Amino acid sequence: MPQSRSAPTLDVIGIGNAIVDVMAPAADEQIEALGMARGGMMLVDTQRARELYDVMGPAREVSGGSAANTLAGLAALGANCAFIGQVAEDQLGEVFAHDIRAGGIAFDTPARPGEPPTARCLIFVSPDGQRTMNTYLGASQYLPADALDEARIADAAILYLEGYLWDPEEPRAAMRKAIAAAKGAGREVAFTLSDGFVIERHGADFNAMIETGDVDILFANENELAALTGESDFEAGLAQLAPKVAILVVTRSERGAVALSRGKRAYVLAEPVNAVVDTTGAGDLFAAGFLFGHSQGKSLAHCLKLGAVCAAEIISHYGARPEANLKALAAEKLG
Amino acid sequence: MPQSRSAPTLDVIGIGNAIVDVMAPAADEQIEALGMARGGMMLVDTQRARELYDVMGPAREVSGGSAANTLAGLAALGANCAFIGQVAEDQLGEVFAHDIRAGGIAFDTPARPGEPPTARCLIFVSPDGQRTMNTYLGASQYLPADALDEARIADAAILYLEGYLWDPEEPRAAMRKAIAAAKGAGREVAFTLSDGFVIERHGADFNAMIETGDVDILFANENELAALTGESDFEAGLAQLAPKVAILVVTRSERGAVALSRGKRAYVLAEPVNAVVDTTGAGDLFAAGFLFGHSQGKSLAHCLKLGAVCAAEIISHYGARPEANLKALAAEKLG
Repeated sequence: MPQSRSAPTLDVIGIGNAIVDVMAPAADEQIEALGMARGGMMLVDTQRARELYDVMGPAREVSGGSAANTLAGLAALGANCAFIGQVAEDQLGEVFAHDIRAGGIAFDTPARPGEPPTARCLIFVSPDGQRTMNTYLGASQYLPADALDEARIADAAILYLEGYLWDPEEPRAAMRKAIAAAKGAGREVAFTLSDGFVIERHGADFNAMIETGDVDILFANENELAALTGESDFEAGLAQLAPKVAILVVTRSERGAVALSRGKRAYVLAEPVNAVVDTTGAGDLFAAGFLFGHSQGKSLAHCLKLGAVCAAEIISHYGARPEANLKALAAEKLG
Repeated sequence: MPQSRSAPTLDVIGIGNAIVDVMAPAADEQIEALGMARGGMMLVDTQRARELYDVMGPAREVSGGSAANTLAGLAALGANCAFIGQVAEDQLGEVFAHDIRAGGIAFDTPARPGEPPTARCLIFVSPDGQRTMNTYLGASQYLPADALDEARIADAAILYLEGYLWDPEEPRAAMRKAIAAAKGAGREVAFTLSDGFVIERHGADFNAMIETGDVDILFANENELAALTGESDFEAGLAQLAPKVAILVVTRSERGAVALSRGKRAYVLAEPVNAVVDTTGAGDLFAAGFLFGHSQGKSLAHCLKLGAVCAAEIISHYGARPEANLKALAAEKLG
């Protein structure tokens, strides 16, 4: 790995889908009747998005997108961040751009004129807080590789990428270009596997990236670990994957999370919450807390604990962007 | 008053601004520095809306509009409702239309093509839950009188109107036409005064409507009562206004509410809440509960209690549309 040329200005630069979440409570029977996989993410076209929206209950809109949520958490904790993602020149695009900038995150990707509109994710939230997502990618899938400012990527300590964005072709090329820029500058690349179905489609790509050392910090939940490694046994999956990355972080919902790094291992229990309202963004905010700790040079155990604190905040309300003062919360819980 | 020609099909038909609320927490110092009157509603133009949105924190969007919120509450309680209001043919217009229809409310006003866009209300929410609103009326101010279906208005037991909509000229004409249709069919007209500044601009109109018997049920808060009557003394204000309407309902925030009808009087205390998160919609949902009780032929005391229960639900979360199951809540609290 080449040495960093100079100290980076940004803590984290992220590339991800630029999405507005549209959320409504739903009964599990409705989710099943609509043919959705409870807890999963499906890509939907215009027609299906229209059908699902028509049967959805009264909803609320909050900016989302996996990497964008993580950056919102990082910025709220005090990190200096930038985001790259594609919105359309429309009202939902303005909402997304407003919310990310209002969170203190630099966001300069120009809005894309014309069709398709800004991406949205129709989220059916079950009574137990489980979220089932239907993503209409819209403009987000047209993030062009030339939207990347390679100098800026080289100027961030960590490049953060979401697996979801591997589906569409143009952003995939953009992410490969970003990885090259980050690695060329001696920066760290953090990657989240995002979803089991994404791994079904792109697992070979992900494994190749991991084998070649393109990924320093890998985030997965236990289902994604199994899907990527082909190991149904949790420990066997960890044993296969951990040696290939500098840090492997695996979340296990209410059973907490584990991190492995160069032979060391740390655990955290899930942070208790009064009531799980909406699990959307739990993984994204866990990543935010972990990466913030990491950017501050903290121990694996500290990073995990901060991840758990941030995840607990996000699942206690609707929406995947933090509502509480995360900085104060972190100080209270971690001192 | 002429007799009703036949039993109405609808419980309530409402005419109001078709608005999407854009809400973010704010410090009182910021609200003051921006020149807003804490707790009030100001109309803003495109330029001012842009400036305010630029300095607003990360926000969330929930459909709003005073009368529309009231109908959402009424429908959630089990009333059969219809709404008339003007959205533009844009994404926020789709959001508004979706949310009101998904709440089970008939909404057929065609979207208006071209500029201006759908109305939005930029709401700065103080740490104590007080809301300060900046309304960009957009398409909402162009509700044409010919958008009204007079037969449908005549087919609703109650016509519900918001004072906010008195500002723009076209909807004012539409509301006058609607009142004539309702009174001609022997229906009740319910009116909410909405805001002190609206009364400053249109108090003479409101007083004239009340004097001529166009208003059967009048909703006000204590500031609005004082503004309309010119009486700073609460009891003097009640004494002046109550004889002119069949029912006068005056809300007093945390001090509860009072209703007066044909010489009778009833009170309710504010329903206790764990934490006041956002007072947006408190008056709207109070009106929903009261009107639902009234539509069921309940006593003044029952109507007030149901109003207080609905208001307590709405101020315990962000947004002015109910999140809890109001029907179950009403059954629990009123039996």
